Amino acid sequence: MKTIACMIFPNFQSLDVSGPLDVFSEVNTLLGPEKGYELLTIASRPDPVVASNGMTLVPDVVIGQDHKPFDMVIIAGGPEIPFGFDDTVALDWLRQIQPRCERCCSICTGAFILGYAGLLDGKKATTHWLHTDRFREFFSDTLLEPEKIYVRSGNILTSAGVTAGIDLSLALVREDHGADIALQVAKRLLVVAQRQGGQSQFSPLLTPAPADGSPMQKVIEYIHQNTHRRIQNAELATVAGMTIRTFSRYFSKEMKVTPLEYLELHRIEIAKMKLETTSRSMKEIAYECGFGSTENMRLAFMRRISIAPSNYRQLFTVNRSRPSQPRRS
Amino acid sequence: MKTIACMIFPNFQSLDVSGPLDVFSEVNTLLGPEKGYELLTIASRPDPVVASNGMTLVPDVVIGQDHKPFDMVIIAGGPEIPFGFDDTVALDWLRQIQPRCERCCSICTGAFILGYAGLLDGKKATTHWLHTDRFREFFSDTLLEPEKIYVRSGNILTSAGVTAGIDLSLALVREDHGADIALQVAKRLLVVAQRQGGQSQFSPLLTPAPADGSPMQKVIEYIHQNTHRRIQNAELATVAGMTIRTFSRYFSKEMKVTPLEYLELHRIEIAKMKLETTSRSMKEIAYECGFGSTENMRLAFMRRISIAPSNYRQLFTVNRSRPSQPRRS
Repeated sequence: MKTIACMIFPNFQSLDVSGPLDVFSEVNTLLGPEKGYELLTIASRPDPVVASNGMTLVPDVVIGQDHKPFDMVIIAGGPEIPFGFDDTVALDWLRQIQPRCERCCSICTGAFILGYAGLLDGKKATTHWLHTDRFREFFSDTLLEPEKIYVRSGNILTSAGVTAGIDLSLALVREDHGADIALQVAKRLLVVAQRQGGQSQFSPLLTPAPADGSPMQKVIEYIHQNTHRRIQNAELATVAGMTIRTFSRYFSKEMKVTPLEYLELHRIEIAKMKLETTSRSMKEIAYECGFGSTENMRLAFMRRISIAPSNYRQLFTVNRSRPSQPRRS
Repeated sequence: MKTIACMIFPNFQSLDVSGPLDVFSEVNTLLGPEKGYELLTIASRPDPVVASNGMTLVPDVVIGQDHKPFDMVIIAGGPEIPFGFDDTVALDWLRQIQPRCERCCSICTGAFILGYAGLLDGKKATTHWLHTDRFREFFSDTLLEPEKIYVRSGNILTSAGVTAGIDLSLALVREDHGADIALQVAKRLLVVAQRQGGQSQFSPLLTPAPADGSPMQKVIEYIHQNTHRRIQNAELATVAGMTIRTFSRYFSKEMKVTPLEYLELHRIEIAKMKLETTSRSMKEIAYECGFGSTENMRLAFMRRISIAPSNYRQLFTVNRSRPSQPRRS
């Protein structure tokens, strides 16, 4: 039996806790608790802890309280975590326990807590797509892999947004008990064994907005108006009123991607929106978004978000009929 | 603002609660709580409630306590619920509140609680695939639709196993606030807007085992040994030592499906296993499982589990390399 401590704190995201704990708990149902996991919530104070969705939890263990060693620690995320975390008791405990446990895992923005504890320096990590810029800014010594659903770096495992904690936990069950048990658990929870595509299929293109009135703002507008056409650097440099070389340097510095990367990412964004909201054919969408051919569009999708346009459409199409009126009986 | 009460009880499944509440809570983040939802847990007693995964919750409201009306009620499931639920306070409250609220929802085995309260008579419903037989036995006046991820019947909405509660909640957000908000919430939680396929992609073929030594046991064994071949009723009747008509009646009575339905379902089961565990081609698998052609296999998959074999493989393939050894640093 392995003992798992799941760290909670005010305003934590409850799915980050329930997801992993329910995965490990299903193993107990299948194999019996002796072969499975002892599951505990831990907090820095004994008081009840309110999650971001309002659920109130009583922690099972308080940090500092005598307890047999934990094999694994799970750190939940929460909507305020990217803006700071001042619980020094929790951070001290993490620094102390990380080298001694088999696995130290974060879910979603829980990666920030590992970062604040100084445990991600020189490590690879991932976190919720919504906060990748802030993460890079805070933890420049960490190699962020925002595309990944989860990332292993030594005994530290970080996972992407919210339900990615379920994927990470299933992977650990696979390590501990084999693929069959993990698949059985997945099917009992009605989740898939392996996600198609990475985290970025869920995220919009997030680039810094160019400063008002900057030459790059004009270029971005030009790209947005001409997405359907083939565009080259020379043309964009002319819009900016710069030489190609100066323009490329300038753009990359302000936008964090090269002009052609931005163009491709923007095309994918527009294509995603058309796939979500229209029933137009792949061919039409590929041309309207400037990919030139469906095959080019497919290759760009696979390269950037690891999922084909047709699969993207199946997963993210929503019925856009008018919301029905609430019915009261 | 709508007020949502989520009913909890000892040994409830915490994902059934966290999933829906986190969906509605993300709407609050996007639109502000005034346009969103007030979220409350409710129990029949004020004491802390321990979930099946060990998490301890303090309910926000106790049944009977004065409170403004609830617009929506969510009833979680739990591993023991299919075997009984004797909380008469909770059942009385449900019977009282169901006609008065806009939506009365169950997650997973929570449908059994609605059934025990007598609220599903003459209604359509779904529940966790693991408990469909028991559900049908207990609630013969309910039309169970085990394939569906969620089912609406008047103001009662029931959802399939565990994470199907997230799908149901997203559908309700779509009704209340439109497809765009629902899609934004889905992407923030890293879930898809629309699942491919129904619940049965997750479930194994569950048919009653034929009685030991019954003629049907011999037939089942024969089917299992000859899955790769074309088999007709006449051949199976010979194995059973009966006329075709008697055999068909006998088989259907004992196995709850016709012989040819059983054959098709069994072929799908074997194909699913081969898709999960091998890298053999669709053509090979189609022939080995007696479908005769990949197109026949595809049609059978679509008809029975609403997902194509190729998609099934992507979702349920797991890396079957030996589990790696635990690493301690």
